[in-house]
Amino acid sequence: MAEKITPRAENFSEWYQDVVLQAKLADYSPVKGCMVIRPNGYALWENIQKELDQRIKKTGAKNAYFPLLIPESFLKKEAQHVEGFAPQCAVVTYAGGKELEEKYVVRPTSETIINSMFAKWIQSYRDLPLLINQWCNVMRWEMKTKLFLRTTEFLWQEGHTCHTSLEEAENKTRQMLEVYKNFAEEILAMPVWMGLKSESEKFAGALRTYSIESMMQDKKALQAGTSHNLASNFAKAFDTMFLDQDGKQKHVYQTSWGVSTRLIGGLIMTHSDDKGFVAPPRLAETHIVIVPILAQAQMKDKILEKATELSKTILERNEIKSLPYNIKINIDADETKQPGWKFHEYELLGVPIRLELGPKDLEKNQVVLARRDLDKKEFISLDILPQTIANHLVSMQKDLFEKAKKFRDQNTFQTYSYTEFKQTIETKGGFCLTAWCKDPVCENKIKEETKATIRVLPLDSIFQEIPEKEKCIVCQTKKPAIRVLVARSY
Amino acid sequence: MAEKITPRAENFSEWYQDVVLQAKLADYSPVKGCMVIRPNGYALWENIQKELDQRIKKTGAKNAYFPLLIPESFLKKEAQHVEGFAPQCAVVTYAGGKELEEKYVVRPTSETIINSMFAKWIQSYRDLPLLINQWCNVMRWEMKTKLFLRTTEFLWQEGHTCHTSLEEAENKTRQMLEVYKNFAEEILAMPVWMGLKSESEKFAGALRTYSIESMMQDKKALQAGTSHNLASNFAKAFDTMFLDQDGKQKHVYQTSWGVSTRLIGGLIMTHSDDKGFVAPPRLAETHIVIVPILAQAQMKDKILEKATELSKTILERNEIKSLPYNIKINIDADETKQPGWKFHEYELLGVPIRLELGPKDLEKNQVVLARRDLDKKEFISLDILPQTIANHLVSMQKDLFEKAKKFRDQNTFQTYSYTEFKQTIETKGGFCLTAWCKDPVCENKIKEETKATIRVLPLDSIFQEIPEKEKCIVCQTKKPAIRVLVARSY
Repeated sequence: MAEKITPRAENFSEWYQDVVLQAKLADYSPVKGCMVIRPNGYALWENIQKELDQRIKKTGAKNAYFPLLIPESFLKKEAQHVEGFAPQCAVVTYAGGKELEEKYVVRPTSETIINSMFAKWIQSYRDLPLLINQWCNVMRWEMKTKLFLRTTEFLWQEGHTCHTSLEEAENKTRQMLEVYKNFAEEILAMPVWMGLKSESEKFAGALRTYSIESMMQDKKALQAGTSHNLASNFAKAFDTMFLDQDGKQKHVYQTSWGVSTRLIGGLIMTHSDDKGFVAPPRLAETHIVIVPILAQAQMKDKILEKATELSKTILERNEIKSLPYNIKINIDADETKQPGWKFHEYELLGVPIRLELGPKDLEKNQVVLARRDLDKKEFISLDILPQTIANHLVSMQKDLFEKAKKFRDQNTFQTYSYTEFKQTIETKGGFCLTAWCKDPVCENKIKEETKATIRVLPLDSIFQEIPEKEKCIVCQTKKPAIRVLVARSY
Repeated sequence: MAEKITPRAENFSEWYQDVVLQAKLADYSPVKGCMVIRPNGYALWENIQKELDQRIKKTGAKNAYFPLLIPESFLKKEAQHVEGFAPQCAVVTYAGGKELEEKYVVRPTSETIINSMFAKWIQSYRDLPLLINQWCNVMRWEMKTKLFLRTTEFLWQEGHTCHTSLEEAENKTRQMLEVYKNFAEEILAMPVWMGLKSESEKFAGALRTYSIESMMQDKKALQAGTSHNLASNFAKAFDTMFLDQDGKQKHVYQTSWGVSTRLIGGLIMTHSDDKGFVAPPRLAETHIVIVPILAQAQMKDKILEKATELSKTILERNEIKSLPYNIKINIDADETKQPGWKFHEYELLGVPIRLELGPKDLEKNQVVLARRDLDKKEFISLDILPQTIANHLVSMQKDLFEKAKKFRDQNTFQTYSYTEFKQTIETKGGFCLTAWCKDPVCENKIKEETKATIRVLPLDSIFQEIPEKEKCIVCQTKKPAIRVLVARSY
């Protein structure tokens, strides 16, 4: 028997855990803070990798692989970097039966080890830009962990690029942010805000950090990807230099950018419901499940035969073939389980489309079709089934995005007074679009008094003056203010 | 200017290093024994992953991900396993700013941590077989390292399966060995022997280890993949049990199997030559390079235009599209480099087919075609170019395999006396097919006196009696002997 899923309205955090565990997306491991990504969850990661890897390669980056271990001394070469990451590092002190002379940290991120190689590989401006990406595991020793969202070890991609000018590095930083935005919206159906992080929230060692921020169904924000302009901070620490066209040796300008298995957590908290996981069709491992109704013994063979034929016909049709991903169909002919049990099971697993096929349907040349995100069943004539399925897959992807976007927009508020702002955060939750004077004192006050943080300075308003009458939400003085998006977050 | 590659005949080991470094396949890192896999090398790994992953999935296995760190106590639960791996482990003793209560080892292989999860997931025979695969990094602290072939950290896939019977586990072990053999031969064009390892050479914790063994151009053997029947050794250590149909709780029977980035080393040492790397077409990142001859200024635009048109035409043609992999074409229009320099560069990089296009060729509606593994140039009419290219790609793949197989077979000797055997190993090198009585004393004598080891008991002769007159090559007594393949190895 399936276990009960805690409804979202009752306890969102327990609902999340129930979905992850019962849909077998991930599990707790015996290693503190580390998760096991089970096949159902890993299939999502494989699809994320496939889609995102293509997009990254289109920008000219190539994949490579750098060591897991980083000499402790490397981390210390960039002052801000070591301050930010050292407290979270796991350290190898002993190897091959001996105490090590130099300790190694398990990479929390790879700017330092990669720069040690870049310094060796780059000679002149002809070697630039150098665009590298790495898919790997990283480790950050977290105190409070949550499956997918914050784990001691996680999987990610980290891009690292070198350029001849700060401007080119800035352009690359923004380009990759756009890649993440498009990927999140098109493939994960997860609408995001793009923006700049405040100084206090930027990556340890960066000049500037940009991020994409998404709203979960509990109205909290999730930072879903980051892109950093590193200027020459790491290049100076590692002497990563190039001979410029003017004959002078100069430090390269760099960027780094990454998204991780955290995206799977975001995906779940954006689309799933009280029945379980909901997979956007573009990420689903299995798109269609056919449940043959086998109660009548004399009809069994005929129904199974028809199910197989249907599956074949669907896959052969051009409407299906022309979708931008390969469709997988599962026929569940297990007779030890009842159809009702199966309906619940595939809802829990998030399969986008369920087809039921019984003796009556066979007679009427139809199937019963249920779409995971809609609360109804339709009878569909087999003549129009492939086209209907293709239409549903396309519109389900679109509808999930639209629904999430509408939810986000309905829960994004413009606030002008601190009282109104605090009240909004406390009672309504969601995102507040407001004004801030750039003073860390005001930023801290927000954090301490509301537990909300400045998520980003929205990209489209970074360089826009905001109306003069609108003052910093906290201090309300005449200091020029900028637009900020504030929310409680994961 | 390109550096000189040491000829194979002069120093095979230096030749290998020259090819790896100059073709930018990998590089040394500042972390002892760890390599950096550069984009040219990583592209090969990506193609290996893509091809092998499909084959693994066809056997029913699904991918998942388990923690990098393994509690030290887990390793100790299987006595042979800890004995085999503990001396090679890197140990995390410190994390998050604190000394750890329980130390963690960086996974040298994942049988233990995976069994801790299997024990939780498996309830009854209905959950079996359970077929899991993991693509990840592992770490074994090696003293003597060599790029790709033996590095402290390497990338691999490790399959882990659970079954209801020893027989089923044995079948799975052999099935995966076959998958590796077919993959190595079809994709890497690397002929292999399949066989059983002797007791002294088997995996720490296995009942039986099978491997595929390949011959390098220096006639040494390379173990290119292993498949283990673990029986219930780990299941007993971790209480991985299932309720069988007879109502009894039983330990599962398991297998594990893996291949690693070592395959890239094998690939290089099988096919490459004194000019550099040779990529079998099925693994190549770039299949065709077009070098336009741009010396005549007034012809430049026309030639570049033709090169672009050619590239497009080739990719559109059915002969090319029907190849079982996507063809990538690179047009090198860089005018700061001479054509001759480029010819050498692409030979170094191993691009299977080079097309040269100059003013004369344009006039004659032809190109010059050079295939990486042949020592000649051909003039090919543009009318038959796509078909000619398709034919060359197919025959190059086949020819590389045939050449390697011929080389291996010519260097595999049947020996009957110990003197003859020793002399063969010393003077000719290569593989010796001979007889062994299964006594570890005889096995050790071979190892100590010749530095050769029993690579495998060839699969096709494991259960075959060998002629009675043929005695153990070492002791020559009347004990029944079995067929073994002996060689010096990497």
